[in-house]
Formats: sequence, C-alpha cells, structure tokens
Amino acid sequence: MGWALALHGGAGDVPRTLPPESREPRLATLRRCLDIGTAALREGRTALDVVELVVRPPLLVSSPVPLSVWCRQPRAILDPIHGQVRELEDCPHFNAGRGSVLTSDGTVEMEACVMEGATLRCGAVSGLSTVANAVSLARLVMEKTPHIYLAFDGAEAFARKQGVETKDPSHFITDHNIERLRQAKEANRVQIDYTQPMKGQNTQAPADDNSQTGTVGCVAVDAAGNLATATSTGGLVNKMPGRIGDTPLVGAGTYANALCAVSATGKGEEIIRRTVARDVAALMEHGDDALPLRDAAARVVAGAPRGTVGLVAVSRQGEVAMAHNTTAMFRACATEAGHTEVGIWTDADAAANGETVSVAL
Amino acid sequence: MGWALALHGGAGDVPRTLPPESREPRLATLRRCLDIGTAALREGRTALDVVELVVRPPLLVSSPVPLSVWCRQPRAILDPIHGQVRELEDCPHFNAGRGSVLTSDGTVEMEACVMEGATLRCGAVSGLSTVANAVSLARLVMEKTPHIYLAFDGAEAFARKQGVETKDPSHFITDHNIERLRQAKEANRVQIDYTQPMKGQNTQAPADDNSQTGTVGCVAVDAAGNLATATSTGGLVNKMPGRIGDTPLVGAGTYANALCAVSATGKGEEIIRRTVARDVAALMEHGDDALPLRDAAARVVAGAPRGTVGLVAVSRQGEVAMAHNTTAMFRACATEAGHTEVGIWTDADAAANGETVSVAL
Repeated sequence: MGWALALHGGAGDVPRTLPPESREPRLATLRRCLDIGTAALREGRTALDVVELVVRPPLLVSSPVPLSVWCRQPRAILDPIHGQVRELEDCPHFNAGRGSVLTSDGTVEMEACVMEGATLRCGAVSGLSTVANAVSLARLVMEKTPHIYLAFDGAEAFARKQGVETKDPSHFITDHNIERLRQAKEANRVQIDYTQPMKGQNTQAPADDNSQTGTVGCVAVDAAGNLATATSTGGLVNKMPGRIGDTPLVGAGTYANALCAVSATGKGEEIIRRTVARDVAALMEHGDDALPLRDAAARVVAGAPRGTVGLVAVSRQGEVAMAHNTTAMFRACATEAGHTEVGIWTDADAAANGETVSVAL
Repeated sequence: MGWALALHGGAGDVPRTLPPESREPRLATLRRCLDIGTAALREGRTALDVVELVVRPPLLVSSPVPLSVWCRQPRAILDPIHGQVRELEDCPHFNAGRGSVLTSDGTVEMEACVMEGATLRCGAVSGLSTVANAVSLARLVMEKTPHIYLAFDGAEAFARKQGVETKDPSHFITDHNIERLRQAKEANRVQIDYTQPMKGQNTQAPADDNSQTGTVGCVAVDAAGNLATATSTGGLVNKMPGRIGDTPLVGAGTYANALCAVSATGKGEEIIRRTVARDVAALMEHGDDALPLRDAAARVVAGAPRGTVGLVAVSRQGEVAMAHNTTAMFRACATEAGHTEVGIWTDADAAANGETVSVAL
C-alpha cells in the first residue's frame, strides 16, 4: 500500500554495446525523473499532476530518447505550480522539443495521452507540430472540451486558444534528425532508434519496423489511491505523415481505471491491435481468476510477438510492474515502502551486469 | 454455427414519434443492407469483404442517418468487385457523402475503421474531408502501409496516392446541415441527431452531448469462421475541428479477434473511455468464467451510463448480439440458420409495438 511510481523512456532492441556516453545520461535521467515524481508524491500531489509533471519535461529534450538530457537540472525547476518551469524551458539542454524525429516529409508530429483511473477521464492529442508540451495539451483537452481527442490542425488551433507555448515547426528540426531521416529513407525503413538502418526491399511503403523508442510514459498511484497515466512521443523516424500510433489511443498505449494505470511502449501497431494497456487492466478485472498486476502485465507482454512491447504499471495497492519482451526498456520505479529500481536491459541480465541500479532518494 | 451478420445505423434517444416518412426508409434500408450482406456471405465472400461492402455505401448518403436513403437501389450495383459500384456512386440518391454533419467550423471530417479477427489486422482513418469511401481507405491503410491509422492531411495524401475517389470538400456540405449547425451553435451544443437542440450554458466549449447517431457499422462471420468488423461515421454536428471519436479507435468503436467482432455506436467519448468493443471480446476471452457473446455484450452495455452505448456483435460460432442502453438503435441481423431481425427501439417494446420486423430474405 501507499504511493508508487513507474516510468519508461521507450523499449526496443537496444544493443548492450550502447556506449557509456549514451547509457549514463539516460540512467541519470531516469533517476532524476524518479526523484521528481517521488518528491511530488511525498508533497501530496495527485497522481494526475505527477504523471504530467514527469512526462512533460522530456518532450522538451533534444535526444532520440527524450528523457536523456535534462538530468542535470536543479530540482527546483521542476515544479510548474511555483512558476519555476520557466527555468526548465529556458535551459539550453532542453531546446523545447528540438530533435523530435521526422516523418517521411521531414515534419514533426507529436502525440500524447493522459488518463485518470477513478473517473476514467482522459485526454489525447496527435499531430502536433508546434506545441511544446503535448501531454499538458492532452490534459487541457480532457478538462476544457466535451471531447477526449483532438488531432492535427484542430489540436493546434485549440492549443492557440488555450495560450499554451508554441514554437515555429522549424524549431523542432535538427541536423541530427535530418541525417537520421536520410538514412532511413535510403534503407526504406520506418526507423528504430537504437539500430542501424537495414537495407529493405524497395516496396511501395516502408517496411514494418517502427518501435517507438522515443516514447516516454509515467504511471502513478498517490497516497489517496488515485491512479493516473501519461504517455508522450515525438513519433517515429520516416513514418508516413498523418500516422497515429498507440501512445494517444486509450486502451492501447495508455490506460487507467480504478484498479491500475498502464503506459506502454514499443511497436505501436502491435500495441494498438492488442489493446495492450487495457488488457493488463482487463486481466485484473474480469473473471473469478482475476490476476494480480504483475501476472497480468507479464501475460500481456508474453502474448505479444517478441521484441514489440514494453510497459510500466502500478496498481491501486501500490504494486509496480515493469515488463518488456524487447531486449531493453529504459525504466525506473519507486514505492512508498522504499523499493527503487532503475534499469535498461532485462532484470536478470541487468542484475548480472550491474545495470539495474537501486538509487537512494 | 454458420455465417452471421449484424449491422447498425446509429444509436440514440430516438423519439417514438419519429414520423413514418423518417422511419420507413430507414427500416427499408436496414433490410436492404441485410440483403446485400447476406447475399455476399452466401456467395462465399469473406467477412472482411462483406463488412466493407455493407458499410461503404452509407457514407455516400445524404441523410443524418446515412443508412437511410439507398434502399431503393437495385442489388446489382452493390458489388464493387464487378465494377458495378459506379452505378451506386453515380446515383443521385447517394450524392457521394453529401450531408455529412459539420464541425463548428462548418467543415466535414469523416472517419472509419476496419478489423479482421483472425489476424488482428486493422486499418483506420480520421479527418477525411474529400474521400468518398472512408471505410475502403481504412482497408487500404491496413493493406498498403506499415501503419494502422492515418489522419487528416496525411490520410488525404495517401488517398490521392492510392487513386481513390475524392470530391471537393464543398460537395459534402448541404443546406440542411448548415441549418443544423446553426441551430446547434445557437444552443451551444454538440448536437444529437434525433433531438432538438437544447439551450445550454454559454460555456467556453459546447456541452457534452454528442451521440454518434450518424455512425454505421457492420460485423460478420463467414462460413469459414472468419470474423470482421467495420464502422464509419460522418461525425457530429458542431464538434470541434480535429475531434476524433470512438469509431476509428481499435478497441473503442471497432474491434475483432478470433472470438468475436464488434461495432459500437453512441456517445463516442463514453465508448472510448470504456473500450467498449474490446471489452465485449475481453469478457469472452478472460477468466474461467468467460461469458458467451450475448452476456458479454449485455454486461458491457449495462455497465455504461444509460443513453450512451449501442453495439452489434457476432461470434465465431455465428451467434448475434445487438444491445443498447439508448432508447433506440437502428439495427438488423441475419444468420445462416434463418433468423433475421430488423428494428429501431428496444426488443421488448418493439415486439409489443410491432416495430421489430422479421424479413424474408
């Protein structure tokens, strides 16, 4: 019992040769995120506030794994309630979403979803090209409209009416991602972040190889037992313009109810067709043999093709599950009872290699 | 066992005073749709072909209930495989999507989804303003791209590359729907098709009152046991531009797996947050006390707020469920065993009033 928090920064086939200069900042960022979320939960913030707070900053980051840069910021900047989020947004390490991956047209299309378990209230956005904080806009859709989901021009127009921070679309495009798109196009692939482009057949459409390793997500249960989840993504390298993935789809990449909160990541299309996040909750909910959280999470992940799905989840009772059938998932968790975990590769392997790190908070 | 087919033309609080001139064409259209789908199943067409065939024409119809006009067409026109769909599209009764309801900006945004049970393959589109056949474009997304879901400009661009029929956006806008939008704006409501606009508070956003009574859907199981579902909608009167509803969301308005196929209709936001279509299947799938189709459908519909949800479903065994907690759902079904049903209001009431009609096929 008590509060609990888990977060991910994408799942995929991350090579164990990932160099320290790529690994260490990411691990440090996971620890930093955990610290932020934990502090907020200890201060009595609601689960909904916490998941937005944890997911929001990564969208401002200029890395293929958006979590990876902002770990060096002072803690004070992370509380938007006190107006200090300005420091985060003004920090050159964050660059306000610069570095989001590019569609085949060279454009940026970001999407996000947020959901509150007790009320089933939810909000989602897709196709954002100028909005700095997709997850916060998703929350505004939830709170300020009769709808759940706004996309593309309508979502951008809503953002302007709400006065949220926006940038010129060109601001989000970096030389690094122009090069990644060039490589992906050359290989005719929808590009995985952590692997080299592979030569594909020159089929009409890119091959189906589209892990959402840029996705970030956070689930939380607060001390009052409120559950919430948020997921946000910069998208896929070389995706078709207009492509919607699992992240903003309630029940696919993001879902919370009165029993648990789930955020998934991986190959978006597999997560959509398997309604991954909802299925974890459904296994806990339906039938006389309803499963505990970890069994439900493990069964859903095991049921998907290998290399396609990772997820983090918390239950109302403060249990945590972090399951993936990819070689790796950037992930972290903390509970009121004092358990913390930060890792990249699978638990067993990580323990053997010292890569799953328990951190003092 | 054997093939089975069920379809809906939207659910909502349809007054029993619906005049015969509104009621009769709709009932006749439901019979006609049933006839088309039944004939196709008897000819050995796959479930996927059948649901596309049944859903496709209604999008071309100029009524708030898209099913309602095309009942007077000769049967031959309904087989696109033989090139005869031209007759349908050229028929003045169909008007190629004219009459789709308007967003608050006075634009048309159509969406659709199709899913095949055995493979979990699925395709979806949103934000179409020029495409004549949304459900067929959804199938092309499924079959011709590595993605599941394309929306807005990207979906329109894909439609052009695929060479599907398009129209100028102005073609879809009728005087009737301009007037309906004017009334809805005056009342500050997202408008239900079958009720008069109600005066609302002048809140920032329209009140939450957005039944998708323009939605059409079809589920089928063919003689080989293949399951498929398709749902399509012209949208809601006075919705915010960019709003995505339940129809295109896998697991919300549309879902099929190896056990059943489901198409839902009603208040889109309730259907999204409850993952209605997936939940019917999940109740059949999970646990030692997995439910039969009708019990699963009834439980999901009963669990949603009154007046919000209707659905049609078929199981692999050829069972049919048609459940709604609205006062009415335009619906029809047929099975290989010879059961047919066409109706508007609830079964018990309809039977008492003679409004559920068994038709000879």
